[in-house]
Amino acid sequence: MKNKKISIKDIASELGVSVTTVSFVLNNKAEEKRISKEVTKKVLAYVEKVNYKPNSLAQSLRTGKSKVLVCMLEDISNDFFAKLARHIEDIAYQKGYKILFCSNDNDDEKSIELIDLFLERQVDGFLLTPSPNLQPKILELKKRNIPVVLLDRFFEKENFNYVGIDNEEASKLGVEHLLENNYKKIGFISIDMNQTQMSARLLGFDEAINKHQLYAQKLILKAKDSSEEKINQIKLFLNDHSDLDSILFSTNYLTFLGLKALKENDPKRLNELGIISFDDNSFFEICKPSITTLKQPLDKIAKEAMRIMFKNLDSNSTVNAEMINLKTELKLRESTQLINNN
Amino acid sequence: MKNKKISIKDIASELGVSVTTVSFVLNNKAEEKRISKEVTKKVLAYVEKVNYKPNSLAQSLRTGKSKVLVCMLEDISNDFFAKLARHIEDIAYQKGYKILFCSNDNDDEKSIELIDLFLERQVDGFLLTPSPNLQPKILELKKRNIPVVLLDRFFEKENFNYVGIDNEEASKLGVEHLLENNYKKIGFISIDMNQTQMSARLLGFDEAINKHQLYAQKLILKAKDSSEEKINQIKLFLNDHSDLDSILFSTNYLTFLGLKALKENDPKRLNELGIISFDDNSFFEICKPSITTLKQPLDKIAKEAMRIMFKNLDSNSTVNAEMINLKTELKLRESTQLINNN
Repeated sequence: MKNKKISIKDIASELGVSVTTVSFVLNNKAEEKRISKEVTKKVLAYVEKVNYKPNSLAQSLRTGKSKVLVCMLEDISNDFFAKLARHIEDIAYQKGYKILFCSNDNDDEKSIELIDLFLERQVDGFLLTPSPNLQPKILELKKRNIPVVLLDRFFEKENFNYVGIDNEEASKLGVEHLLENNYKKIGFISIDMNQTQMSARLLGFDEAINKHQLYAQKLILKAKDSSEEKINQIKLFLNDHSDLDSILFSTNYLTFLGLKALKENDPKRLNELGIISFDDNSFFEICKPSITTLKQPLDKIAKEAMRIMFKNLDSNSTVNAEMINLKTELKLRESTQLINNN
Repeated sequence: MKNKKISIKDIASELGVSVTTVSFVLNNKAEEKRISKEVTKKVLAYVEKVNYKPNSLAQSLRTGKSKVLVCMLEDISNDFFAKLARHIEDIAYQKGYKILFCSNDNDDEKSIELIDLFLERQVDGFLLTPSPNLQPKILELKKRNIPVVLLDRFFEKENFNYVGIDNEEASKLGVEHLLENNYKKIGFISIDMNQTQMSARLLGFDEAINKHQLYAQKLILKAKDSSEEKINQIKLFLNDHSDLDSILFSTNYLTFLGLKALKENDPKRLNELGIISFDDNSFFEICKPSITTLKQPLDKIAKEAMRIMFKNLDSNSTVNAEMINLKTELKLRESTQLINNN
């Protein structure tokens, strides 16, 4: 008599008790609801006998726990986010949680629509890279006691859970590594995203340049421009500043465009320039020259984010928000050891 | 009196009619259910007045349409799948659909658990790379009239919607390109995945080798081995077959391991060997040498898959399954034009 399609109604009818009674027993509320031990035992024995599998959506609507988490990232097709997603997914599965992914394209409307969709469908928590004005929606989630952990960027004035790297320190590490390898005229190529991680990378760069009194030039590309336009601007920048001996790129995506610009325009200079990139990527190992990177510890970011998520899920009361800034690791490769300038 | 939180119950109580009546009116069933025109008009006027927004999950449970699609891929962190996901997501959003992603790791149990989860939460359709024994679950979806489109691989004996490339032809194109560039001793490096696309790539390779009576050696790596183990086996294979003048890799992931093996073991040979890879990747453009690829038309795969999905969603009756095999494009780069062997 094993039938997965059996319902609570069937169980109640078979045992001559009410649906509510069965529901209380199945949701561990028998004692609280003063169901007799005899009835409780009868229900549990029958449920085991018929191998009753509760509909998990119905169950989640009752218990308020779906064991489903949402991971909403800026762009799931970007290697950095795709790899981070993978680490998060692996931890979730180990803990018996399923995880759903989506991209918000750093767009508020898309973010809000997606969050609303998931809220209606009962999910337990959100890990997300917030779009620029998502604070009100996150506050709404907080009020509803739904845990949220921000990734990669945060809001200066809000007290939300967040896991990322110390971006300012990472930029300084990059500049100081270049300096140690005798690079002294450093370019910085970044993008005009109004995001905390991008501002911090720029700030850290400026501070390190000032501290060591180095020569620097900066190019801040427009996010809305096409890749082709960005490549052309990088070419112009490199031509205009032929005195630069090294470049720090603020994301792996920009490094890719920069390598393409150099390969197309001036392959010789590609071998002479010191190059260092935020975010590691397996292809940076096999490029020629292989590229030195400021590697974000994706495994640790995922681990910390999930630790905070589970701490919040396990708690019945409000938990203080945590802001975690992890250290970046320098992956030393050929691109910063090619020549000794002076 | 604009209140989004108003419920059907509130409306019924305010108008002195039953919840069922309101529900029938809101779901365009007033006439069918013989609700009087007067009552219908009253309900609709009130709903407009209070700006009633139905809960879309409740609505989707009634109408059977959620405007949510699931895209379940082998591994969302693999560049090939991540980029395909992006194309699919863009088309879905243009059509007013949301799309949720997950990885199934080519694992049947994980696939089935995820499909069950989504079924309970009402989704309209599935685009997926099927795990090896997923046929019964897909047949179940078909019976329930939920559209499914398989991506990348299919089941030989089943008549399911599928969009992918003509893998046999793609391998032949690769071998013939090598031959035209005077490479005549060709290695083939693939993986022991029992998947239709992998078998077809091997078959196409063998057929082209036989047709042109070329010398060939094959290495079929074990999927369960670690990346390190795979790299070591590629190194051994290349050492054992120092007579090979070229290699065709059956996926971009293996090409990456091969490039790493060559870089570590024999950088000179990296510049001499003809190298051609299945699947394009932006980094293949900037590698040195840049890598010739058999590029899957991801935009067209996504377009065709979504065309079939919407055709099925729009139809009330069963639609014949479509099997679409698209052409692969040869992206000619340095790695197959470096030397003229003979």
